[in-house]
Amino acid sequence: MMPMKIVHYTDVPAENPGGETRGVTVRWVVSEQDGAPNYYMRVFEIAPGGYSPRHSHSWEHEIFILSGEGEMVSEDGNAVVGPGTAVFIPGGESHQIRNGGEQLLRFICTIPSTGT
Amino acid sequence: MMPMKIVHYTDVPAENPGGETRGVTVRWVVSEQDGAPNYYMRVFEIAPGGYSPRHSHSWEHEIFILSGEGEMVSEDGNAVVGPGTAVFIPGGESHQIRNGGEQLLRFICTIPSTGT
Repeated sequence: MMPMKIVHYTDVPAENPGGETRGVTVRWVVSEQDGAPNYYMRVFEIAPGGYSPRHSHSWEHEIFILSGEGEMVSEDGNAVVGPGTAVFIPGGESHQIRNGGEQLLRFICTIPSTGT
Repeated sequence: MMPMKIVHYTDVPAENPGGETRGVTVRWVVSEQDGAPNYYMRVFEIAPGGYSPRHSHSWEHEIFILSGEGEMVSEDGNAVVGPGTAVFIPGGESHQIRNGGEQLLRFICTIPSTGT
């Protein structure tokens, strides 16, 4: 039997996700390496002035904002998001998240195994 | 094109999950109703002294603790979890989460679409 994994996110190495990002780190807290069969969980941090790429892909994301303030950029306009906000980005939808605030923006972003 | 969904978790109705629970509410912040194809995101709150059922099932959970202090019960023993802790519960693993603290325990618990 595979054991339960319990880890504090700060004990997972922060990686540079690469691509058209600025001031972004990612920690894969639940991944394929843990035997997760269907989807994975990452914790992102974006420094003030930073952003993720504006892009789209066939798979979805499910996001939950932990701290800070962000701006979600979508095809329907932009929205401010903060702690406690959940976001579902359907497959095919263009998206970007920017940190226009003064605090570190921290959020969970999950991704299906088909998206990696 | 399905639009992006952005919702604060407190704007989603808190439901009683039923079963062998005490002091537990669940909010489905991303669900099948949103068109999520692979997995769903819920926010649970457990009052001091409350607990989820001790059970096992064939599907996994991926959890992230938002606030408060909880006790994860597993086949390998118990562990205290707090804000920023991620938990991967593989399919088939017996699990329970208890709030033995004095604060509200809040956490994200995701579940694959095959588990509902």
